[in-house]
Amino acid sequence: MSLKESRTRRLALVAIALLALACAKSEVPSHAEASAGDEAAFDPLPSWNDTATKAKIIEFVDAVTDPDGPGYVEPAARIATFDNDGTLWVEKPAYAELLFALDRVRSLAQVHPEWKTQEPFRAVIEGDRDTLVAAGTHGLVEVLMASHTGMSATLFQTIASEWIRDARHPELEKPHTELAYQPQIELLRYLEANGFATFIVSGGTVEFLRTFAQPTYGIPPERVIGSSIVTRYEVQGGKPSLLRLPEVDFIDDKAGKPVGIHKRIGRKPILAFGNSDGDFEMLQYTTMGSGTSTLGLLLHHDDAEREYAYDRDSEVGKLDRALDAASAAGWVVVSMKDDWMTVFVEE
Amino acid sequence: MSLKESRTRRLALVAIALLALACAKSEVPSHAEASAGDEAAFDPLPSWNDTATKAKIIEFVDAVTDPDGPGYVEPAARIATFDNDGTLWVEKPAYAELLFALDRVRSLAQVHPEWKTQEPFRAVIEGDRDTLVAAGTHGLVEVLMASHTGMSATLFQTIASEWIRDARHPELEKPHTELAYQPQIELLRYLEANGFATFIVSGGTVEFLRTFAQPTYGIPPERVIGSSIVTRYEVQGGKPSLLRLPEVDFIDDKAGKPVGIHKRIGRKPILAFGNSDGDFEMLQYTTMGSGTSTLGLLLHHDDAEREYAYDRDSEVGKLDRALDAASAAGWVVVSMKDDWMTVFVEE
Repeated sequence: MSLKESRTRRLALVAIALLALACAKSEVPSHAEASAGDEAAFDPLPSWNDTATKAKIIEFVDAVTDPDGPGYVEPAARIATFDNDGTLWVEKPAYAELLFALDRVRSLAQVHPEWKTQEPFRAVIEGDRDTLVAAGTHGLVEVLMASHTGMSATLFQTIASEWIRDARHPELEKPHTELAYQPQIELLRYLEANGFATFIVSGGTVEFLRTFAQPTYGIPPERVIGSSIVTRYEVQGGKPSLLRLPEVDFIDDKAGKPVGIHKRIGRKPILAFGNSDGDFEMLQYTTMGSGTSTLGLLLHHDDAEREYAYDRDSEVGKLDRALDAASAAGWVVVSMKDDWMTVFVEE
Repeated sequence: MSLKESRTRRLALVAIALLALACAKSEVPSHAEASAGDEAAFDPLPSWNDTATKAKIIEFVDAVTDPDGPGYVEPAARIATFDNDGTLWVEKPAYAELLFALDRVRSLAQVHPEWKTQEPFRAVIEGDRDTLVAAGTHGLVEVLMASHTGMSATLFQTIASEWIRDARHPELEKPHTELAYQPQIELLRYLEANGFATFIVSGGTVEFLRTFAQPTYGIPPERVIGSSIVTRYEVQGGKPSLLRLPEVDFIDDKAGKPVGIHKRIGRKPILAFGNSDGDFEMLQYTTMGSGTSTLGLLLHHDDAEREYAYDRDSEVGKLDRALDAASAAGWVVVSMKDDWMTVFVEE
């Protein structure tokens, strides 16, 4: 330890001691006191059924926060990463961001008369799903670039925010933000109350995610990691502006998730929560050969009654490889049907 | 405001009220009390001389934290960004990271006999500065790629940490971390104590910065923004690994700084501190046409006695365009000579 480190630690200890003194007369019970005496009275995860899954989550949090236990993890290293689509809110029948992109192309069609005969735009405008699917990744990128770029970051934020406010889920007929999962929001708050820093790590684009992550999940912009497009700094009309260019900067999916986590957070998570094969590498990065307490979680959509039931054969949110790996890797498969008392946030 | 936002706000208010109640009996004075009564007794910036500069900084912090004042900024928006080289530590006669790269090439020369005749490596090994300078950006990139890539992120961290621990500044003959500026560390802590989130926004590479940012400045990895190289996720020997590839991912300098800030933080800073033309756009992005309370600061190296004196004609840390713009932009030019009582952290 360098002199500087030891001094920083001493200062930190002094600060902690002062804080402890200052709050010595306080009536707020510490975590240890609360969990010892009031466990029955206070349930941090009321929308989770009392199953083995819930017990495992609480056991993990208790272990990493117990300073005298072998699984203790210092607060700074308590990083938890959550996928978004299918993990924090509904992703069926299509990702909300794709629905946004299609709606945006339809709006822009007024100023792009040439799109009436130009694929894939014609297909989008006329709702020709087969042609759109046939256009594949190339077609998708064209739609995303047309809907997501060519404006300032500020304007994009306004457009995306208005869509999030006004759009309705095509089948469940509610605003998308009302299709966020209540048990997950409780889990985010429970982790934060136990010293975790929570992050969204999504294949969706970071600027789209940021328009609703704070009000919907309580996750601020700086803790949202996603795919991104290239932006260029400019001064326009006496104001600094970031122009969104039609060029992909980073894809935060599959093996891109550990890359994004490393780039943005610079530490390995100790908890990762996903729901599809796109989250395989994030869970593997978090739990494999870590030598410390870690927890990988996979949400299994097995609830056709309250939400959707899909896994291995689904186009959206395919869960196959990760489901096969879960048992050997020690990942907890969360059953929406059995483990969740409530699914959606209350209106 | 959506229902969800209003609920989140209500919950936050309840939490704040509970916290206030719990600490009501505490002896710790609030910010307002401390600044009203004990100003003479408690100086948050003891290494800053009592000049107009220090007064402006304190005035700014008081304004953005005064909930009844017109300049109030909510805590979540109190983002402060600091350049590293020349702003938080010494950058003369050469950036520490360049010295690291040159040392690393010299170490690697043992396993690269071909470098004895291959430029720019021959020039590095033999200390042929003129040839190295003549090799320009292309030569520099070759040196950086040879020193910074082709290993795992974990191995790079070890190599860089050992260098930081062992290397000595070529002129001041101290470890680089002892050439961090004490007044700036006080400023970081002062801002954090007033609800700011502090970030490093440097042209240096993020993984090099992270090896010393926490122990030296108290800034954790997730609040370090820098240039980056491309990494690829792989499993090697049963362990997840990020392989560092010889490809530039992002240059966090000049107009790249606002891009990096937007990508990583997703909010505009309200305070930015730099020292060279490389920080021009960051200060401009922070302060120009913002309509809210902002503060731009430029450290002027005018102290040949205690550190170095340089600005317009310097190769490293050139301060010309930003110095010309400072007055009209309202940026505060901090004189190392006049405004700082102490320069370096104490050993």
